[in-house]
Amino acid sequence: QAFQLAAAYVSDAQFARNIPFQTARRCIWYYRLYTRWVTWGPMYVFLALNLALAFLETPAKPQLESPLWVTMLLESLCLVAFSSRLVHLAKFTERSVFWKDPKNICVLVTIILTVIDMVIYVALTHSGYYIVRWSRALRPLFVINFSESRQLRRSFRNIRRTLPEILGVLVLFLFSIAIFSLMAFKLFGKRHLITGEGKPYFQNYFNIFFELYVLVTTSNSPDVMMPAYNSSSWYAIFFIIYIVVNTYLFMSIFLAVVYNNYRKHLKNEVRNSVFSKRRTMAKAFGILRERLGEGWAVSQQSWMQLVGMAVPSMSQAQRLLLWQVSDEEHTGHIGKQAFVRLTDLLNIEVIETRGRQHPLQSCAPRVYSSAASQALRHVVHHRFFRYFFDGVILLNAGFIAGDEASLAIRQAEWLFLGLYVLEILLKLYTYEPQTFFSRSNFWNWFDVMIVISALLATIIVHSIQDARPTTSTQILDFLLILRVLRLLRIVESFERFRVVIHTMINIGPTMVTYAGLIMVFYYTFAILGMELFQGKIRFFPAGSADAQPFCGNPLLNGSKFYNEKYCKNNFNDLSSSFVLLVELTVVNQWHDILPGFVAVTNVGARVYFILFHMIVVILVINIFIAFILEAFILEYTLDKGETESAIEKKIQELGLGIAEEDVAGNGMVLVDNMETQDQEPRDAEASKPADSRIMFKISDRRYRTVDTLLQRMFEEELAPEYEGPYDDHEDIDVRPQQLTLDNLV
Amino acid sequence: QAFQLAAAYVSDAQFARNIPFQTARRCIWYYRLYTRWVTWGPMYVFLALNLALAFLETPAKPQLESPLWVTMLLESLCLVAFSSRLVHLAKFTERSVFWKDPKNICVLVTIILTVIDMVIYVALTHSGYYIVRWSRALRPLFVINFSESRQLRRSFRNIRRTLPEILGVLVLFLFSIAIFSLMAFKLFGKRHLITGEGKPYFQNYFNIFFELYVLVTTSNSPDVMMPAYNSSSWYAIFFIIYIVVNTYLFMSIFLAVVYNNYRKHLKNEVRNSVFSKRRTMAKAFGILRERLGEGWAVSQQSWMQLVGMAVPSMSQAQRLLLWQVSDEEHTGHIGKQAFVRLTDLLNIEVIETRGRQHPLQSCAPRVYSSAASQALRHVVHHRFFRYFFDGVILLNAGFIAGDEASLAIRQAEWLFLGLYVLEILLKLYTYEPQTFFSRSNFWNWFDVMIVISALLATIIVHSIQDARPTTSTQILDFLLILRVLRLLRIVESFERFRVVIHTMINIGPTMVTYAGLIMVFYYTFAILGMELFQGKIRFFPAGSADAQPFCGNPLLNGSKFYNEKYCKNNFNDLSSSFVLLVELTVVNQWHDILPGFVAVTNVGARVYFILFHMIVVILVINIFIAFILEAFILEYTLDKGETESAIEKKIQELGLGIAEEDVAGNGMVLVDNMETQDQEPRDAEASKPADSRIMFKISDRRYRTVDTLLQRMFEEELAPEYEGPYDDHEDIDVRPQQLTLDNLV
Repeated sequence: QAFQLAAAYVSDAQFARNIPFQTARRCIWYYRLYTRWVTWGPMYVFLALNLALAFLETPAKPQLESPLWVTMLLESLCLVAFSSRLVHLAKFTERSVFWKDPKNICVLVTIILTVIDMVIYVALTHSGYYIVRWSRALRPLFVINFSESRQLRRSFRNIRRTLPEILGVLVLFLFSIAIFSLMAFKLFGKRHLITGEGKPYFQNYFNIFFELYVLVTTSNSPDVMMPAYNSSSWYAIFFIIYIVVNTYLFMSIFLAVVYNNYRKHLKNEVRNSVFSKRRTMAKAFGILRERLGEGWAVSQQSWMQLVGMAVPSMSQAQRLLLWQVSDEEHTGHIGKQAFVRLTDLLNIEVIETRGRQHPLQSCAPRVYSSAASQALRHVVHHRFFRYFFDGVILLNAGFIAGDEASLAIRQAEWLFLGLYVLEILLKLYTYEPQTFFSRSNFWNWFDVMIVISALLATIIVHSIQDARPTTSTQILDFLLILRVLRLLRIVESFERFRVVIHTMINIGPTMVTYAGLIMVFYYTFAILGMELFQGKIRFFPAGSADAQPFCGNPLLNGSKFYNEKYCKNNFNDLSSSFVLLVELTVVNQWHDILPGFVAVTNVGARVYFILFHMIVVILVINIFIAFILEAFILEYTLDKGETESAIEKKIQELGLGIAEEDVAGNGMVLVDNMETQDQEPRDAEASKPADSRIMFKISDRRYRTVDTLLQRMFEEELAPEYEGPYDDHEDIDVRPQQLTLDNLV
Repeated sequence: QAFQLAAAYVSDAQFARNIPFQTARRCIWYYRLYTRWVTWGPMYVFLALNLALAFLETPAKPQLESPLWVTMLLESLCLVAFSSRLVHLAKFTERSVFWKDPKNICVLVTIILTVIDMVIYVALTHSGYYIVRWSRALRPLFVINFSESRQLRRSFRNIRRTLPEILGVLVLFLFSIAIFSLMAFKLFGKRHLITGEGKPYFQNYFNIFFELYVLVTTSNSPDVMMPAYNSSSWYAIFFIIYIVVNTYLFMSIFLAVVYNNYRKHLKNEVRNSVFSKRRTMAKAFGILRERLGEGWAVSQQSWMQLVGMAVPSMSQAQRLLLWQVSDEEHTGHIGKQAFVRLTDLLNIEVIETRGRQHPLQSCAPRVYSSAASQALRHVVHHRFFRYFFDGVILLNAGFIAGDEASLAIRQAEWLFLGLYVLEILLKLYTYEPQTFFSRSNFWNWFDVMIVISALLATIIVHSIQDARPTTSTQILDFLLILRVLRLLRIVESFERFRVVIHTMINIGPTMVTYAGLIMVFYYTFAILGMELFQGKIRFFPAGSADAQPFCGNPLLNGSKFYNEKYCKNNFNDLSSSFVLLVELTVVNQWHDILPGFVAVTNVGARVYFILFHMIVVILVINIFIAFILEAFILEYTLDKGETESAIEKKIQELGLGIAEEDVAGNGMVLVDNMETQDQEPRDAEASKPADSRIMFKISDRRYRTVDTLLQRMFEEELAPEYEGPYDDHEDIDVRPQQLTLDNLV
């Protein structure tokens, strides 16, 4: 049971989990069940389902709108799932800890509020009253508060802590607009100018304030200035100063504040997370340690057993490698510090690449080693092989741009597809397939996927073309996108582009967190918008039978909103709302969209739009930009972390490694290198240890988890042994640990 | 003569000048003349005049357009001035060094080219040919290359070095747009949709590319999507992915690249500049040093004489203070390291504040110390005094917003003005005037300036109101702006705002550099634009006699450009061009302005606009934003530099200082504190040295020069003694120094 507990601790530390659990046997069992994907996997399904309900509930697209009992049933199902997850958590957590965690309280309160809202809603709609389903806006709270979405919660904490400082700047910024508005009011108001649309210009203070706020977003940039500028050139100075101060200076200051706070708080969070990991590992160490001379240590045997339990998927050879890295002195025991470092080692993706022969080499050695075969493989290895296919791709681009109807181009498509398939087959013939498809070789995967999908799609199109023309068109569109995407592969050939692309791929997973963050805000604003504006503006597809003019609302007669055909920008269902919110995030023309909503409701609609701009554009998007800035600056400047170097050194020392420069390169180079090593195994064999057929390399995708990325950002500043202050209450995720003898070792 | 040379070196180091001069007596004389403002002051006048010529040359506003001989004469005058400056420089520089400096070559070549262009132009225009005055676009080169504008040159070097990396991303970015355009072309082209204006939608590949490029700038945000989106909701996904990848991801990457390079290169530049300063100081040390035991040192006497010559404006007391800071051990001699540090000490603004009595105290001690007077001063000191005037300002804001025509409000203006004057008089009565008006008290200056200007303007308006109504209106506008600006003072009362405002004021001088940078690009683009588009689009003020429809060009009939009344956005004179370029920098609606220019010329006009966007918006504005980011992040995180602390400590040690916290605060607090110290001089006098009537404080505006700010950014990373590698050729400003015995000490 001690090993069970220790393994639980190690796996907690590895995945940076921080769920306090009791150490009784039954509790550990519950806890391990809780962290297994069979229990948290369905949770994600329910979370997604819960959010997706908004697609089915009124207002929705007519074809999706479902009867009340369906959505109510599904929502109840979700609530039951959430409750049971909470009960499960309570099973292995100490009661006092459970009730102190704001996450749990928040989930519980949200569940109760939702139930109340559902009951009231059902009761009232049955009595014929109309009532707002307000609890729908609370749904993102479930996403935020369930432990699995740790990153998201961290971002939210980050926002919460950045708020005070940003509010200070925001007030100053609004004050600045107010001052400028006052000036504009007095300067231009008395001149009775008219705008391009023939309306009075700058006559009302609050309208001026709004116009100047819009100017900060640059949406009405020259138009708001033109009447004054046409009246006198000097007035341009007023607007130029305004733009410099508010659009450039203040917007940059917002970014600076967000970026600065982002880094500061992130640093804190990561530090706390590292400390918490170390404490967890120290607990595991406390369980397994044995007395050794004056201090404590863990023996190789316990260590191997522990890692085997904590990470069942790891092979014996890899475990041994990690042990050899940890036990630098070959004493058979490791101390606390080396033990604690295990969590970093586990987060480095080590790829085991057995020095494999090509399968054909084993099946038909004669043929595979024949002169013709060797010449063929030589051709594939040659760089002109790559250049040739780069040329083919470029040529293909020209053909894609050409007219599809022409027969020659259609036939050329077959030729190109054939060439690509040939390329992949040749590569598979030359390179060892398992190496070719190793997880880090992004471009190989990309390539094969695209070509196979294209092949399938082309065949399907040809077989059903005559039977069902509409389906065929859709598949053709899909096929077209695949074909164009294939052009992307040309990027791989340029070193300078590869850095940018690789960084993008590296930060991809973290970007998903930020996408989630934005989604949470979008969802709440979408629900809010649907309740406020649903049905007020309607869209009728061209040529539909019941089409009404003016977006179905005579109030929009003559408005810019209707004239620019914005009718589909409405809040009538979730997907339309999302698209509209994206448009509002991009900001441009929002002052043209807004008057439409003002026309069908009242001037208060501005509050919704300005609030959205302040929260999503100024705060959330800036956090997203801050993240990308930081990630790219790190990627451009960061050297490999210390831990990684240690494990690499060890691999090289043991003669199991692959040269450093190839690891940094792309898959192609790696494969080349593997091949070279394959061809001369005899020379190297003498210097290799017994298990010489197993080779390791450190994955190119260095940042496996977001935590690792974040940790690497700041790890240089953390003393390797320090476990952090024990009275640290700041981070609600970190539960202060009791001061036991173990921790003081 | 030795002192002359040493003083020249010290003053070079103080102002981070780096002009190599010969050490002969005559050369030093020429050099000192060269660095004196009587010679470089006029240079700025000629540089400004040279640029301003574009206001007078064709094309220009009709009332400014001057005959050819006037502008030619002025330009010749400027060229003579530039040449003589160059000759002056050659007088004291070694010939080989002079000809190796790209600056000098560049200036010389530009002068020659300009003369050639002028001769050809005059000759050809007299023969009746029309020819482009292309050399006008070269004029900013003078601004860049004259030594006085060091900051500007540094920014340019920065841009040049950032270019390779940004070009890599730019190509990838254009490739990405090309791929998306291809997809859009194939997806939407065959569907024969029409835009809101009834034109065909996405039918031509290059138009699609252009439209999608515009979408990156968000200018045509929902409009470019609407036809596709109205046809099917799914197409929104294409545009959303496009916006995420190109507008958000790539634009952030541009900022990241610029920001990263900005910091990297700036660091290099600053390091080089610091090293060069140290080397210059080491040279000065080499001249003045005397043998002292085993090493070399400079005696107090030589030191005092040197500083007296190098900084004639410095008082004896201040020099003594600096000596005391340098000579920490009181040995009467300082070594090389302490000597080299002098340049940092000189860059810290130390304000000498004699413990002065209020003048009234000396003139009429009885009256000033009377109970009534003391009570009055007590009232002014009280914080309610400030609150009261904050209230008055707020009330005033309400009155400003009110109707000017009403008599009550006009009379209220007099009341408010009286109150403000009273406030200033009371403060002057209470606080010592020289302290009140010390250079660092931004708000006091601001306040007094505004109130006095308002007073004068009001009096002028009243005296001439009936005589000349138009002048009176202009002064009234001016007065109004003054009144509104006064409202800004309310900001001072909030600590949170003060930090932001103070940072803005601090980075003001450096922002001027970036304004200069942008101006250089604007000027070149404006000249280019005027040559390309002059007279093609004309603006006729409302009601002018010779007004023509369609901006004077029938080609604009029915265009959006004309309908939105953009006629004044033209390139017909320098100021109009500048305003238009500002609009293009803000980016919004540039795709509506551009078709106007395409209509009157041809589709090639797009090149000019896209080039402007790439260079100014993507590169230069991002550098500006990078600077503001860095400045604010530094301001939020930076502690005081080491040198500053040393001098502060010394000041405190010597009992001459003012408590630290007051220095950080605003002028008001400082004045309060001064007052307190004034009231109890007897208690402290015992502990003060002989010259106790002189007090020092370190200026609040810590960053006197841009160099100091930049140096502080990175100074922590520089070893205090290291003078840099001597084979450092990277920075063209740094001339490798000869390896003499002095430098090796």
